[in-house]
Amino acid sequence: MKILILNGPNLNLQGRRDTDVYGTQRFDVYIESLKKAFPQVAFDYFQSNVEGVLINALHRAEGEFDGVVLNAGGYTHTSVALRDAVSAITIPTVEVHISSILAREEFRHTSLLAGVVCGSIMGFGLDSYRLGVEALLLRLKERKG
Amino acid sequence: MKILILNGPNLNLQGRRDTDVYGTQRFDVYIESLKKAFPQVAFDYFQSNVEGVLINALHRAEGEFDGVVLNAGGYTHTSVALRDAVSAITIPTVEVHISSILAREEFRHTSLLAGVVCGSIMGFGLDSYRLGVEALLLRLKERKG
Amino acid sequence: MKILILNGPNLNLQGRRDTDVYGTQRFDVYIESLKKAFPQVAFDYFQSNVEGVLINALHRAEGEFDGVVLNAGGYTHTSVALRDAVSAITIPTVEVHISSILAREEFRHTSLLAGVVCGSIMGFGLDSYRLGVEALLLRLKERKG
Amino acid sequence: MKILILNGPNLNLQGRRDTDVYGTQRFDVYIESLKKAFPQVAFDYFQSNVEGVLINALHRAEGEFDGVVLNAGGYTHTSVALRDAVSAITIPTVEVHISSILAREEFRHTSLLAGVVCGSIMGFGLDSYRLGVEALLLRLKERKG
Amino acid sequence: MKILILNGPNLNLQGRRDTDVYGTQRFDVYIESLKKAFPQVAFDYFQSNVEGVLINALHRAEGEFDGVVLNAGGYTHTSVALRDAVSAITIPTVEVHISSILAREEFRHTSLLAGVVCGSIMGFGLDSYRLGVEALLLRLKERKG
Amino acid sequence: MKILILNGPNLNLQGRRDTDVYGTQRFDVYIESLKKAFPQVAFDYFQSNVEGVLINALHRAEGEFDGVVLNAGGYTHTSVALRDAVSAITIPTVEVHISSILAREEFRHTSLLAGVVCGSIMGFGLDSYRLGVEALLLRLKERKG
Amino acid sequence: MKILILNGPNLNLQGRRDTDVYGTQRFDVYIESLKKAFPQVAFDYFQSNVEGVLINALHRAEGEFDGVVLNAGGYTHTSVALRDAVSAITIPTVEVHISSILAREEFRHTSLLAGVVCGSIMGFGLDSYRLGVEALLLRLKERKG
Amino acid sequence: MKILILNGPNLNLQGRRDTDVYGTQRFDVYIESLKKAFPQVAFDYFQSNVEGVLINALHRAEGEFDGVVLNAGGYTHTSVALRDAVSAITIPTVEVHISSILAREEFRHTSLLAGVVCGSIMGFGLDSYRLGVEALLLRLKERKG
Amino acid sequence: MKILILNGPNLNLQGRRDTDVYGTQRFDVYIESLKKAFPQVAFDYFQSNVEGVLINALHRAEGEFDGVVLNAGGYTHTSVALRDAVSAITIPTVEVHISSILAREEFRHTSLLAGVVCGSIMGFGLDSYRLGVEALLLRLKERKG
Amino acid sequence: MKILILNGPNLNLQGRRDTDVYGTQRFDVYIESLKKAFPQVAFDYFQSNVEGVLINALHRAEGEFDGVVLNAGGYTHTSVALRDAVSAITIPTVEVHISSILAREEFRHTSLLAGVVCGSIMGFGLDSYRLGVEALLLRLKERKG
Amino acid sequence: MKILILNGPNLNLQGRRDTDVYGTQRFDVYIESLKKAFPQVAFDYFQSNVEGVLINALHRAEGEFDGVVLNAGGYTHTSVALRDAVSAITIPTVEVHISSILAREEFRHTSLLAGVVCGSIMGFGLDSYRLGVEALLLRLKERKG
Amino acid sequence: MKILILNGPNLNLQGRRDTDVYGTQRFDVYIESLKKAFPQVAFDYFQSNVEGVLINALHRAEGEFDGVVLNAGGYTHTSVALRDAVSAITIPTVEVHISSILAREEFRHTSLLAGVVCGSIMGFGLDSYRLGVEALLLRLKERKG
Repeated sequence: MKILILNGPNLNLQGRRDTDVYGTQRFDVYIESLKKAFPQVAFDYFQSNVEGVLINALHRAEGEFDGVVLNAGGYTHTSVALRDAVSAITIPTVEVHISSILAREEFRHTSLLAGVVCGSIMGFGLDSYRLGVEALLLRLKERKG
Repeated sequence: MKILILNGPNLNLQGRRDTDVYGTQRFDVYIESLKKAFPQVAFDYFQSNVEGVLINALHRAEGEFDGVVLNAGGYTHTSVALRDAVSAITIPTVEVHISSILAREEFRHTSLLAGVVCGSIMGFGLDSYRLGVEALLLRLKERKG
Repeated sequence: MKILILNGPNLNLQGRRDTDVYGTQRFDVYIESLKKAFPQVAFDYFQSNVEGVLINALHRAEGEFDGVVLNAGGYTHTSVALRDAVSAITIPTVEVHISSILAREEFRHTSLLAGVVCGSIMGFGLDSYRLGVEALLLRLKERKG
Repeated sequence: MKILILNGPNLNLQGRRDTDVYGTQRFDVYIESLKKAFPQVAFDYFQSNVEGVLINALHRAEGEFDGVVLNAGGYTHTSVALRDAVSAITIPTVEVHISSILAREEFRHTSLLAGVVCGSIMGFGLDSYRLGVEALLLRLKERKG
Repeated sequence: MKILILNGPNLNLQGRRDTDVYGTQRFDVYIESLKKAFPQVAFDYFQSNVEGVLINALHRAEGEFDGVVLNAGGYTHTSVALRDAVSAITIPTVEVHISSILAREEFRHTSLLAGVVCGSIMGFGLDSYRLGVEALLLRLKERKG
Repeated sequence: MKILILNGPNLNLQGRRDTDVYGTQRFDVYIESLKKAFPQVAFDYFQSNVEGVLINALHRAEGEFDGVVLNAGGYTHTSVALRDAVSAITIPTVEVHISSILAREEFRHTSLLAGVVCGSIMGFGLDSYRLGVEALLLRLKERKG
Repeated sequence: MKILILNGPNLNLQGRRDTDVYGTQRFDVYIESLKKAFPQVAFDYFQSNVEGVLINALHRAEGEFDGVVLNAGGYTHTSVALRDAVSAITIPTVEVHISSILAREEFRHTSLLAGVVCGSIMGFGLDSYRLGVEALLLRLKERKG
Repeated sequence: MKILILNGPNLNLQGRRDTDVYGTQRFDVYIESLKKAFPQVAFDYFQSNVEGVLINALHRAEGEFDGVVLNAGGYTHTSVALRDAVSAITIPTVEVHISSILAREEFRHTSLLAGVVCGSIMGFGLDSYRLGVEALLLRLKERKG
Repeated sequence: MKILILNGPNLNLQGRRDTDVYGTQRFDVYIESLKKAFPQVAFDYFQSNVEGVLINALHRAEGEFDGVVLNAGGYTHTSVALRDAVSAITIPTVEVHISSILAREEFRHTSLLAGVVCGSIMGFGLDSYRLGVEALLLRLKERKG
Repeated sequence: MKILILNGPNLNLQGRRDTDVYGTQRFDVYIESLKKAFPQVAFDYFQSNVEGVLINALHRAEGEFDGVVLNAGGYTHTSVALRDAVSAITIPTVEVHISSILAREEFRHTSLLAGVVCGSIMGFGLDSYRLGVEALLLRLKERKG
Repeated sequence: MKILILNGPNLNLQGRRDTDVYGTQRFDVYIESLKKAFPQVAFDYFQSNVEGVLINALHRAEGEFDGVVLNAGGYTHTSVALRDAVSAITIPTVEVHISSILAREEFRHTSLLAGVVCGSIMGFGLDSYRLGVEALLLRLKERKG
Repeated sequence: MKILILNGPNLNLQGRRDTDVYGTQRFDVYIESLKKAFPQVAFDYFQSNVEGVLINALHRAEGEFDGVVLNAGGYTHTSVALRDAVSAITIPTVEVHISSILAREEFRHTSLLAGVVCGSIMGFGLDSYRLGVEALLLRLKERKG
């Protein structure tokens, strides 16, 4: 089972920016705990601040991974192109957010991705990723079953 | 660890209504699989079609449960009163939806609850509940820790 | 042929409230004239001011009636939950209104029910119910035919 | 008793266009069944695709008919002029629609007519006309009574 | 000096419809008083309920008249085509309304014509036409001057 | 003089929830001080979290009380049905709010009740009730006078 | 016959500002031509840039003048207080604008005055005032008649 | 205890304008009854139609009065500057309205003041002022207490 | 191959009106160049300023032509009835505009036709028609192929 | 070089009101530091809370000053009249704000002035004025140059 | 004649993604048929998923190509920066879309490009490109002509 | 003192594009004059058309520079991700624009950056940068002071 954790803009600063909203744990530390929690999964991690590079990563994921856990950051609310990319690939994508996008500034209240992902998880801090992986595994089991 | 699964309007028909959207599994069957998956949790299940009765249930949950997994159904989008009830109690509430509310009719695109729950999970079918329980356990562990 | 006449909030006061808008005939008197006009139909009448109790009534109607004539009153414009209930049952529902909702205050200009009922009749005073029954009979005949 | 059935744009194609929405019965066939169902009524039927010609027809109807059953088609949503024409005449007009305008594309969700007709009936297929005639008869009886 | 008085939909009923809004004087009577008030002007009067026929009339006016006093009635608020017609001709057009469109229902609050006429006069009853003629004369004098 | 104090959703938790917004005084304590302040008034107090039960209470109040002081809580902003209930009864209703609804989240900025109550008082903490009673007394005196 | 010409903000600069929009004629020159055109009228002219001073002027006009020709300038679009002042007095007010407010920037597209004046005239340059006086005279004659 | 009653635009005409909305009692008469009702209070009364003069009055009130009862009339809905003035001073201000702003034209449905006053009272006729004084006294007692 | 070029309101003035937007070439001249460019096509040309006459033309085109190139002019943005007519016929329609509707006044920014035509071409001056014919030929070839 | 510093409503309280937003430095102290920083400039300072008095000041500035630094306070967002005044004069005006209007309440997010000033500076505390003077000097040099 | 075909996000997947909307033909195959259809044109083809790289490509095109056929994909609806790039260069750009953006989800209903391209072609599948090239050739001929 | 001048999309064309809006001076020339004006500052200049590359540049600036002068061009209005990047770093950022974004097309009227920068300067041509540097220096001095 191969899963791509795909992080969008500013998530390379996780643990160092706006810590009252996003917490203080760095993502490279967190990814290790993810690996321990899901020993049966081979994780790959990729982050970019560039919208188009994230689209490229989704395209490439098609043949290489069984599914994607995607935190598109600020592009969640503005990128039709990213939505089209998720829609274009056939492996399942789960949308995650560290904070609850529906409970912050109004310009964060929509997700252009929501209509094309298999589901969305938001507001649980970094645990959103763990729940996202779990959701993906359930969905993949169902597909096979 | 005691968790209340609280279901809102029309969820008593789960498995029998709009099965292309909500699937065919009945909730009383599903709850048993939940109990098996989380043997360490004492579950209680309550459903009502009445907005105010759900509010009553949330008020009563305060002293009796460690947390709530809430699917408020159609009230999610329209009930300021339910939002106030979730805000009024101090135990954590996780919001779950079987389908993705952001990917259906426009009148389902807002959640009045999102600002007062600890997080939201949507679109994973009945697995949204399972992920909701998991999310609640993570959150409760964190509170104690 | 069994038909449920289901009335929502404040319709228990019909004939006594805002008589310039709703007229002066009481509903229990009117129901008798309905019975006379349609001797082939067994009518049942239920009214509640509670949104969830109306949902319950719709759920129960499924097995017991051939169709429903529903005046959801003020819930017409605000209740996603009631819409979901109408959508969840398989017997046909006809939406009726005493006055024309599209010709009053702007907050009455939408019907969340319209998308899930088989049709809507509004503005004919209490005759809207009579026309609603007639519409239901035509629809049921068509289904059988 | 003389009633004008007045049809607006594209209804001359009824039974031949968008048959999944409007059904396959042609209007000239249907009108015959209407005549049989209401032997006491002298019907006249007029259709035009021209907004202003419909206005002319409404003006002329004033002296010649007891009432009008009007399906204004696409002009329902856009024509202030047609609304003014219905308002200008003193015989009652009933608004009918084959499909439910509130359950289709958003640009069909308003009726400029609703505020000036005596009532609206929508969603019952061609039966909307039959119910419209019935509604008109009830209203006319009431006026005389 | 030749002026076309051009009236849109329902104005053929002037004096007989909605008399509380539009008054009781018929237009053919009023036009005579206009002629007396402006003996130096050759008036022509044309009315149609058909949007496109009004457009035709504006096109033809180009070579035959020095200016137009236009009451477009309900088309004022909805007709881009009529606006384009006024814009297409080079003789000046003055917009008049019997009642004040800005003081009635909200769907009458815009004038698509306002941007292309030389000015607008509204709310003075039939006197709006008289003021419209006067405005046109002032404008034409200025052009020559 | 008999007055009904009618409280809507979550007000049973007054003094225990969101105390920075609503203060720490419980309503049962407060009601005693009200009684002392107005010895000439016979108060009755009723609270419910159920929208329809509040409607029932308003209907029943008609014959039993001289007026109502109503805090509809979250239903203030969403309930057309409650508005209709206030409009349906003939005894005066005063609307009160502990905090200022116009100064909180945007979804609290409208009151569907405002158009049918005799007046609104908001933002004075529990004193809003006291002022509401006073307002009701002034209004009742005026009616008699 | 006494008429007050009341000008709002920046109209003291008429003839010197934005001459492509407002023309080059100064108002004190123009007022003389007005007096010549209407020898039977005693004109008074007042201008202020202060919203409240305009309100004062309207209040004082009540007893002293037969009617008001008002160009409220930029306050037209924003001043509820000025609207209330026009509504509060009983002598007729005619609204005039040099340019057509409906054909300029969007923030000029509404007139809060339109609902309370007897009519509006816009777009004829300074001739709007002349037409405004004429309109007022017609209206005053009608009142007496 | 010194209280400033501060009235905004057109309230100098109270009792003489739009008497169906505002009643027929003049304010200088009413103020006397206020003084009698609250013998312990030294009232000062000030009215202006000028927005900025009202701002000046609020600034000056800071050192001279214990609180302000403010009816800002039409400025309530449009004046950010007045809001800033209320916010700038530290003595408490109570907002009052004779009629209910939420139950009239839509452009009166917002109060820019609501977010900075201690509370709002509307719809009780001139009694709104009496209730406003009472509210202010309760608030001031609380501050001292 | 038979193609109908169908022009809507004001296009009879092409070459003579608003020449900075629409150019100076008359349509009857242009049509000749079209015929030369596509010798294999039998063109018919029809223009009307009347919305309903355009609808009639579309209805009649069904049996007589292989496809339609339609410039609906001002009706593009406002006519639900025209949209319904395009939708009702089964031969393909291509939408063309001389200027780019998305780059002019905001009221031209929507096309009610776009959802029912096979494609839209705008902004190329009269060449939009030539491209429209070409598009239609490609589409018809594909259908046959 | 003569520059007018023109301050709008509530800025006379600078240093004493809402000090967390606007800081604690009084404007009369600050103006001295401005004079020191720009010894080549003759400053004049004027403040008023009255919208129309600010308009008067702008009109008078035309002949007396080389440019204006304007902080219109709350009138920035609501005053079409002030915008017209800035537009009417020919000397350059720079708009300044102590806090960033785009980062506060939504009703402060527009500037009616922005379209007619030469530029806007906001968010730098009182330094916004210093930068405003500098901007004006650069602009004036460019004009001369 | 040198033309750049510039494709935006996800168009590298053309023929493999959402084939019900976009068809099954791959772009590298299609480009060959384009070259055959226009032997007089030297085509260059470039695709990127990165918004800024598309902007770079447009900048570079200035000196190297005679014109651009641009399908900006999802950036069409969201990118002000891309619009600015098209506006910044002086060679003509034609906008093409495979499907009709005005006939899909509402967030695709605007084109920020439409105001700066010479024209737009949408809805003809891959033939939109062929028509786009043709349009560009007509436009370039006209420029030279 | 080290300052980063960071320019967004299309600013590499400064001096060559839309010169009526942005002027004719190239940025590499201008930067030299900046260096001369502020000899005490070490400037670095970076420009990119790629949103994510700008985000990277902001991240890197954190340790290397004392502050940033940012002109985000078209991304100003659409990029939540860029806003998050500015918010994530702790060195101060000043927002500058060559033209006034509030005075151009409506889609430029918002700045997602305004809420997270220390201040904004717009409309002064390239001098906006000079003022931006000055603003940054004042802010940095204040921080140290």
